[in-house]
Amino acid sequence: MDFLRVACAQINLTVGDLPGNAARLVEAMAWAEEVQADVLLTPELAISGYPPEDLVLRDGFVTENIATLHRIAAAAGETTTVVGFVDRSGGGNRDDAGHFRVHNAAALVQGGRVRGVYHKVLLPNYGVFDEDRYFAAGQTRAALWEINGVVAGVSVCEDIWITDGPPSDQAAAGADILLNINGSPYHRGKGSDREAMLAERARSTGVPVVYLNLVGGQDELVFDGQSMVFAADGGLLYRAAQFDEELFWVDVPLPEEGKSGVTATFVSGGDLLEGDPEPPPASHPRLEETAEVYRALAVGLGDYVGKNGFSGVVVGLSGGIDSALTATIAADALGGDAVWGITMPSRFSSPGSIDDSRSLAQNLGIRFDEISIEPPFTGFMETLGGTWELSDVDIAEQNLQARARGAILMALSNKFGGMVVATGNKSEMSVGYATLYGDMVGGYAVLKDCYKTLVYQLAEWRNRQGAVIPQATMDKPPSAELRPEQLDSDSLPPYDLLDAILERYVEGDASIGDLVKEGFDRETVTRVARMVDANEYKRRQAPPGVKITTKALGRDRRLPITNGYREG
Amino acid sequence: MDFLRVACAQINLTVGDLPGNAARLVEAMAWAEEVQADVLLTPELAISGYPPEDLVLRDGFVTENIATLHRIAAAAGETTTVVGFVDRSGGGNRDDAGHFRVHNAAALVQGGRVRGVYHKVLLPNYGVFDEDRYFAAGQTRAALWEINGVVAGVSVCEDIWITDGPPSDQAAAGADILLNINGSPYHRGKGSDREAMLAERARSTGVPVVYLNLVGGQDELVFDGQSMVFAADGGLLYRAAQFDEELFWVDVPLPEEGKSGVTATFVSGGDLLEGDPEPPPASHPRLEETAEVYRALAVGLGDYVGKNGFSGVVVGLSGGIDSALTATIAADALGGDAVWGITMPSRFSSPGSIDDSRSLAQNLGIRFDEISIEPPFTGFMETLGGTWELSDVDIAEQNLQARARGAILMALSNKFGGMVVATGNKSEMSVGYATLYGDMVGGYAVLKDCYKTLVYQLAEWRNRQGAVIPQATMDKPPSAELRPEQLDSDSLPPYDLLDAILERYVEGDASIGDLVKEGFDRETVTRVARMVDANEYKRRQAPPGVKITTKALGRDRRLPITNGYREG
Repeated sequence: MDFLRVACAQINLTVGDLPGNAARLVEAMAWAEEVQADVLLTPELAISGYPPEDLVLRDGFVTENIATLHRIAAAAGETTTVVGFVDRSGGGNRDDAGHFRVHNAAALVQGGRVRGVYHKVLLPNYGVFDEDRYFAAGQTRAALWEINGVVAGVSVCEDIWITDGPPSDQAAAGADILLNINGSPYHRGKGSDREAMLAERARSTGVPVVYLNLVGGQDELVFDGQSMVFAADGGLLYRAAQFDEELFWVDVPLPEEGKSGVTATFVSGGDLLEGDPEPPPASHPRLEETAEVYRALAVGLGDYVGKNGFSGVVVGLSGGIDSALTATIAADALGGDAVWGITMPSRFSSPGSIDDSRSLAQNLGIRFDEISIEPPFTGFMETLGGTWELSDVDIAEQNLQARARGAILMALSNKFGGMVVATGNKSEMSVGYATLYGDMVGGYAVLKDCYKTLVYQLAEWRNRQGAVIPQATMDKPPSAELRPEQLDSDSLPPYDLLDAILERYVEGDASIGDLVKEGFDRETVTRVARMVDANEYKRRQAPPGVKITTKALGRDRRLPITNGYREG
Repeated sequence: MDFLRVACAQINLTVGDLPGNAARLVEAMAWAEEVQADVLLTPELAISGYPPEDLVLRDGFVTENIATLHRIAAAAGETTTVVGFVDRSGGGNRDDAGHFRVHNAAALVQGGRVRGVYHKVLLPNYGVFDEDRYFAAGQTRAALWEINGVVAGVSVCEDIWITDGPPSDQAAAGADILLNINGSPYHRGKGSDREAMLAERARSTGVPVVYLNLVGGQDELVFDGQSMVFAADGGLLYRAAQFDEELFWVDVPLPEEGKSGVTATFVSGGDLLEGDPEPPPASHPRLEETAEVYRALAVGLGDYVGKNGFSGVVVGLSGGIDSALTATIAADALGGDAVWGITMPSRFSSPGSIDDSRSLAQNLGIRFDEISIEPPFTGFMETLGGTWELSDVDIAEQNLQARARGAILMALSNKFGGMVVATGNKSEMSVGYATLYGDMVGGYAVLKDCYKTLVYQLAEWRNRQGAVIPQATMDKPPSAELRPEQLDSDSLPPYDLLDAILERYVEGDASIGDLVKEGFDRETVTRVARMVDANEYKRRQAPPGVKITTKALGRDRRLPITNGYREG
């Protein structure tokens, strides 16, 4: 039986780092030669990194990325490598009318040079994607490439999501195999959606499908890898690791009727390997949902810290669940040595808060310090005393405590290096139950897309792997501890109810009316919706965080700040 | 000579405020009836406000906006009104594949109902625009409408910017007049570009053109009005005010060969007015460039404050030019009573800083208070003293001073209401010469898109209208006053050089190599470029500000934070 040996480089690249990305690609190409692969797939826009955003608007950047492609091609041997890059149709990045003529492209390189280029046809421009901003759509949907006598269709990411997209056309035109390269960002449960879609694509075309995805974190996005290979009948031959780099190859059996023999652009004229295909390695089982989210958070934070050159992180520990989980994820992602926990008590802190934070730090093996906010808080009260009457409970005084803590964390970051990690969760960020420039400070907000109820699930899951978060932290009622006896439930609906509303209102774009029809109380829903809308200004100044849902509070969701909409 | 009486409502609407916008539209319609206009133009997406951003993704919002259109239509009498709204092709906002099927649309309403709908064909998806994210493109470019026997082409904004766009097709198909409604945001010099383009469009088609633009501020954008009417020969008949609301009408002479008489969708069957057209009112002269920018800043800030319901603003006064100009713009936009200036001296403040701030406050007639940062700063040093060695000059200590000031301003805002206005300029924001959570705090940053050299020009221009900014503030060398003898020039190239580099690097997307070719010193350019790239994280957490250039530091410019690109 004929088979194509397809190698896949599920690797972690860095946006903009052209020489670094090139080195990783050349390394993978050498490995593919060694394992005698016919073809090697590398991620979407591998050379520029994904997504390159407005770097693409710089002519100089596009020129360097093309020069990098040619340097890579010069290193290509027998194996044909599919390399993602930004292609230019000619001239500058824009035509005279200012329209872009660069493409999200896949080059086929072999024998020391570029043998062909495919331009992505379907450009996503929704959610976190802005590809219409940058790229012109490819016009050649059914491009076919002859690799060692086998006819392959090559496509890029979105191209394969639509039933009658380019891969279907390529199969209809005679492709023996469909090769699809991706920079497909993670959200919860996306892996099984992808698997079902790809299996169906293979089954309906009757052609095997190889899906290669990027891995690693880039600002708000985490790419989860989980590359997959499907036989012509839609059966899964192999599923690669989630969230880890992996080089693997699979001998993909070609359709029974043999190679189609249609005319295709010649890429390479080598011979296929003789004999029987080797069986694929054992697939990685898909992670259970909570474990999957936890890994996404760790990779997102770890890569943000690592790729931006920070030596470690600083986390304010309140004794509560959010900061405890944040510090735990940081320690898991970066190692305990790279994490510094700071407890910053005030007159309103419960004694348990300090003890629980200290226990956590001991369990995680992280550096721990106690720095009181009383001196600066007293200083603020003293200097403001001429202007107002003191009060223990007003929002201004509460925020001053949070801001004193924020300034201390930033001062430690400035003095000793290390990035501050913000600890807020999606429930708080949605309704604005957070102090701008206070507990919101930081370079990255690891739980920003995790509702409070999910925070508890994640903490429980993590403790089951080895208990680190003190039980008292898990059990105590959530409180900001900014005034006496304060509880979150004074200001907010219970979190299970709040989160259920937010999931529909923020992620589902549901209306108040929809939610009432679904059985929620109108007064509660209206109050929550107003809080969400009124706090857009805070979110606009929040640090980025890991996207793990279908709609995160970042580039994914673009609401006006000035917004007079009141439903009804 | 036949003429069409075209009325224009250059009005200030609010995104999302469906009932409020409807009331403004109905009011304008009553006025148009009174002046016996044949047709009334209102702004692009007048009902939803522009740009509605992700509100368009909410089915409920789109439904309410359509219901609002029908309520408005019910109020329509003899005059045909062109009303911008979000149209839906049927079903939900997305089809089964998740693609949008709503349109950026213009309804023609007359005699109590909707008579026709045009869908915008050309959707901008660059710069600040994301219209491909929301809208499906219209397919009927050459739609024609019969209004009182005259054949009109209706189009929306971008449609008219392209030489062979829908208005040209409409003219070729027999339109007697071209009506174009806009939500066209301001940048410096755009008015004359628009005027040249529109004159050319009239001249080349041989058909009169009426261009109606929105006015007012919406988050980062300011719409400058400056609606214009052109005769068939391209001659300017009328130019409306910049930045002000204006209701006006012009009797537009129809082409000499008379009405074309082609078949068009019937809208209204009234009679044109008899007799000679009245001469148009005298055009507003275009503002001189610095005056124009000043007005844009004032409108942007004023509408942000007003539309978000703030009673006033709080501004930290350092004695420097940025905060002085910011307070002056605020006082001009909101009135002196609505502005509160705070000077927050430290051990490093020059005595002049307080005196100059006090003089400014007196000149502006604003409330003024002095609040020392020494008590909280000392408090921070005391509580951090266990962790580090004190130093007067390190960046951590400098930032603590800035953050103490930020916290004080926010505390005053929390306690007394009023929004903090940030005072940073584009030069500082570009290179990150600003303290996150310190001088960067605020709801709005009015000078965010103004380079330091422009800040001086604006201050000088403003003082020529009536001297308010003390000469000492204008003359002193820029300093952050966060350590002894500190000057901006210790850390940055001279501002005229810095700004020239930034203009090419930030706005022009030029490379370091390009700038060296243009004669700049490579070492300086490289240092500036590195600072710009390394400070993306600060800009991501900055407040919004008024866009006045072709590329502002907001939605206009979308660079990755994690960015390994180093040119060369």
